[in-house]
Amino acid sequence: MARNIKLVLEYDGTAYHGWQRQRGQATIQAQVEDVLRMVSGERVSLIGAGRTDAGVHALGQVANFRTRSRLTAADFQRALNGLLPADIIVLEAEEAPEGFHARFGARAKRYEYRILNRELPQAVGRAYHWHLRGRLSLARVRRCLALVRGRHDFSSFRSTGSSAKSPVRHMFECGARREGDLVTLWFEADGFLRKMVRSLVATLVEVGQGRLGPEEFGMILAARDRARAAATAPPQGLFLSRVYY
Amino acid sequence: MARNIKLVLEYDGTAYHGWQRQRGQATIQAQVEDVLRMVSGERVSLIGAGRTDAGVHALGQVANFRTRSRLTAADFQRALNGLLPADIIVLEAEEAPEGFHARFGARAKRYEYRILNRELPQAVGRAYHWHLRGRLSLARVRRCLALVRGRHDFSSFRSTGSSAKSPVRHMFECGARREGDLVTLWFEADGFLRKMVRSLVATLVEVGQGRLGPEEFGMILAARDRARAAATAPPQGLFLSRVYY
Repeated sequence: MARNIKLVLEYDGTAYHGWQRQRGQATIQAQVEDVLRMVSGERVSLIGAGRTDAGVHALGQVANFRTRSRLTAADFQRALNGLLPADIIVLEAEEAPEGFHARFGARAKRYEYRILNRELPQAVGRAYHWHLRGRLSLARVRRCLALVRGRHDFSSFRSTGSSAKSPVRHMFECGARREGDLVTLWFEADGFLRKMVRSLVATLVEVGQGRLGPEEFGMILAARDRARAAATAPPQGLFLSRVYY
Repeated sequence: MARNIKLVLEYDGTAYHGWQRQRGQATIQAQVEDVLRMVSGERVSLIGAGRTDAGVHALGQVANFRTRSRLTAADFQRALNGLLPADIIVLEAEEAPEGFHARFGARAKRYEYRILNRELPQAVGRAYHWHLRGRLSLARVRRCLALVRGRHDFSSFRSTGSSAKSPVRHMFECGARREGDLVTLWFEADGFLRKMVRSLVATLVEVGQGRLGPEEFGMILAARDRARAAATAPPQGLFLSRVYY
């Protein structure tokens, strides 16, 4: 009988064209599936909770796959960590109930976006933040975050390539904090539209740096029109940090 | 009249064959000198405080050069930060006294070595630490560090390729701390022999993991014989963090 294995993955997305398998591109899903096939001898389909874009990182991506192999979850973890490149790590592996589905079963996901907010860039760790010179006012950012909380049509912050049927998502919590020069914006919702976090972050930065008012942010959210929001923030600051079931 | 400009540099050493210019290799010194030549029109010689090895990082390397150009220190900083690759940053630039020499004038340098001490490796930030599975006893490490403090002949922790005339160095301070899974060992001395920190770290790890006793560490130090120490720790955990004048 086929068993269902759940994985928790950390990865550095720098070298990848995102999560999802694409012909001729290095992706996280393809890397993990290829190793799973090698160790189990089966064609394995890996279901990921969130389809992170090119260059986006994960600290707690969740995925599952079905297997008829005799390998235990711990065997899979050891084999994957031994054979995967150093930029992908299996943090946990366990047997999951028959019905567990990493994507459709997710109740909520948490994304974090890291901004290095100071005059000079940083050489060490530059693959893990967005460098922004002008000082962000977190008070202004938080006025916008208060508008983002709750159930909204997020069409204004959705990528044109988004395939989701409904643009309505429930933002359970979100916040902003500063530690030294590092500003982290975080978002917990029942789901995210394509490039939603990076689009929200880019518009929040406009407000935080004073080029846009918090009222205008509210109008953009209410407009439900992608053309109204700012560009998207670059991928290297974004982390899928946790998935809740 | 030639002026003397002092730079403070941060760099990610991952892509470089160390500080010192070498024919046919990408090095930090060559990168900075090439940009200085481009902006000043002069052949510039850059003197670095510490000649970091391949893969070693710096948070506060100090360097100086002489120039007859009319560019101010601030002009040089802007030009360098605009033209250097993102893994090298000029944190500060200022006019220095005529006699300032980044290498010979240094009173002390501080190096830090970062160890990720836990079962699983980390994908994010893996270029900035050494991953070590077995738990380090900082109590044991500190017993050794107490022996390292002071004036010693460090021949046991010197690389065979070291060219320094005297193997005697004064270790003003050194220490070890743990923050979560990250252990940092740090060393402040009036100078360091080639690969001295990485060689000390490798031997301290032997003690911290129980394969060597602190007394044996003391005997290795006293032996003044390179063959006695352990291998050298990998470069990616090492940071030249500060130079004192």
